[in-house]
Amino acid sequence: MKFTVTILGSGAATPTLERYPTSQFINCNERCILIDCGEGSQIQMRKYKLKFQKIKVILISHLHGDHYFGLAGLLSSFILLGRTSKLKIICPVGLKEIILKQIEIGNAQIPFEIEFDEILLTEKALVFEDKVLEIYAFPLNHRIPTHGFEIREKAKDRNLIPEKLEEYAISVKEIGEIKSGKPLIRKGKVIPENEYSKAPAPPLSYVFCSDNRIQSKQVGDMKDASLLYHEATFTDKDKSRAKSTFHSTAKEVGECLHQSGIENILLGHFSARYKDTTTHQSECQEYIKNVFCVTDGATYEISQNGVEMIG
Amino acid sequence: MKFTVTILGSGAATPTLERYPTSQFINCNERCILIDCGEGSQIQMRKYKLKFQKIKVILISHLHGDHYFGLAGLLSSFILLGRTSKLKIICPVGLKEIILKQIEIGNAQIPFEIEFDEILLTEKALVFEDKVLEIYAFPLNHRIPTHGFEIREKAKDRNLIPEKLEEYAISVKEIGEIKSGKPLIRKGKVIPENEYSKAPAPPLSYVFCSDNRIQSKQVGDMKDASLLYHEATFTDKDKSRAKSTFHSTAKEVGECLHQSGIENILLGHFSARYKDTTTHQSECQEYIKNVFCVTDGATYEISQNGVEMIG
Repeated sequence: MKFTVTILGSGAATPTLERYPTSQFINCNERCILIDCGEGSQIQMRKYKLKFQKIKVILISHLHGDHYFGLAGLLSSFILLGRTSKLKIICPVGLKEIILKQIEIGNAQIPFEIEFDEILLTEKALVFEDKVLEIYAFPLNHRIPTHGFEIREKAKDRNLIPEKLEEYAISVKEIGEIKSGKPLIRKGKVIPENEYSKAPAPPLSYVFCSDNRIQSKQVGDMKDASLLYHEATFTDKDKSRAKSTFHSTAKEVGECLHQSGIENILLGHFSARYKDTTTHQSECQEYIKNVFCVTDGATYEISQNGVEMIG
Repeated sequence: MKFTVTILGSGAATPTLERYPTSQFINCNERCILIDCGEGSQIQMRKYKLKFQKIKVILISHLHGDHYFGLAGLLSSFILLGRTSKLKIICPVGLKEIILKQIEIGNAQIPFEIEFDEILLTEKALVFEDKVLEIYAFPLNHRIPTHGFEIREKAKDRNLIPEKLEEYAISVKEIGEIKSGKPLIRKGKVIPENEYSKAPAPPLSYVFCSDNRIQSKQVGDMKDASLLYHEATFTDKDKSRAKSTFHSTAKEVGECLHQSGIENILLGHFSARYKDTTTHQSECQEYIKNVFCVTDGATYEISQNGVEMIG
């Protein structure tokens, strides 16, 4: 199971040469998901050699341009490159009209199906699932309707212990039943499941939150993350600006999540006013075990052993 | 008088790492004009150190995304960076609605005036003028309504010959009258103007044509160019594709303009299928004196001495 997050843009609203606007490419066991799509995202995917035709689902957090101005261009490239496979776009209300208008006025035909799911949530909800993963969306706290997302592996079946298959004479039919939760019965007695199977590894989860003025009541939506991405547009010295623009400082993110159990956090969406992110890093590191200040092109791997930057 | 053209994007519809989609930054005596604004144009302007806040006029040729998908992002950056000066956008019908919808849905206020002039021309017409330049637009031959543009220096006044001012006792009042075209009269006779003034240098002109399936009847709209930019999406071996997509081959451009008097031409909008542009160059060079196949970041200077690549 491969679970990676590649940062396509780590900057805030004004793009710079070093930091493109927000976009992330997620590979969860070869299910490729794009979260947000700021201007230039398709160029970044080329630069970092990511196969963007493999994207099945695009999640758009909100309708500030630095989170979606690259979407019309990406879809145009899909059209020009002859994509045929279906695409799901989960996004705020209003995006479908904007995107389709641009494609229509250019007189292009879309040779593949696009399913837009426009959402406006007041609490966390499942918005997509397939055989291997589930995607949840939940409300963030920003100037316009904004959602965070959680991409979570599906809970796996328990692993049968091979030598016990023989000992208990478990049939092929029973294996299927056990996997779907039925108890194993021998001589009229339920056999405790630890006798013949082992618990699977817990599902891994990636949670994305941008843009957000963090609040303690949101911790429940984030706390199960094996890896959490949270914006830290500002540092503590600019906390009044963070408040007025509905963003967060690195310190506020750390403070709010201190007792949450979250051990691995990516910080991003850095304002162009900062020359480097050492202050963001130190402000948050006081509270969270592993803090990574992201850069364009960085890839992080989530595994049962934790989180590692692998590129 | 400085008259330069900087190429921000030299590629066709699918952007590559080497060639961004179409956009050009024109500096005509410190009047800064942007022609087309493909995705990433604002990033390219940062890369090539062009002061994009100085842009007064934006010309959009047509509503295929590779010619305008960067505009909403550029305007957003203008807003974020606190622009206050007026901006004129000359563009096809429909763009204003698309752009304003995107700004409105992001809940942004525009702190400067944007004047959209939506045009749909059947023949060449003046669309903008100020003290130093005139901009003309004219129809191109493409799949959707498309305009070419000419940026032309205003005709300058004749230069008075200093020693003749005394000889003919020309008064300050008369200098103004001569400049506005009144004849100089002495002893009841009109003095021939070459006696006391010299013709000014002819106005320089830059003509931009993308995207266009070139036709001989268009030559009149292009032929006065000191420098002409024309698309050459394809080479001769792909001429059937050029025809079906309403583009031009480098050879067709050369052939069509052979007798036009045009001596300096930029070719661009190259399809991503070509690894290099040596064939484009040779196909066109058979017919035109100076052919430049453009690259992202290249700057060309137009002067009375001709055209030179200066960066």
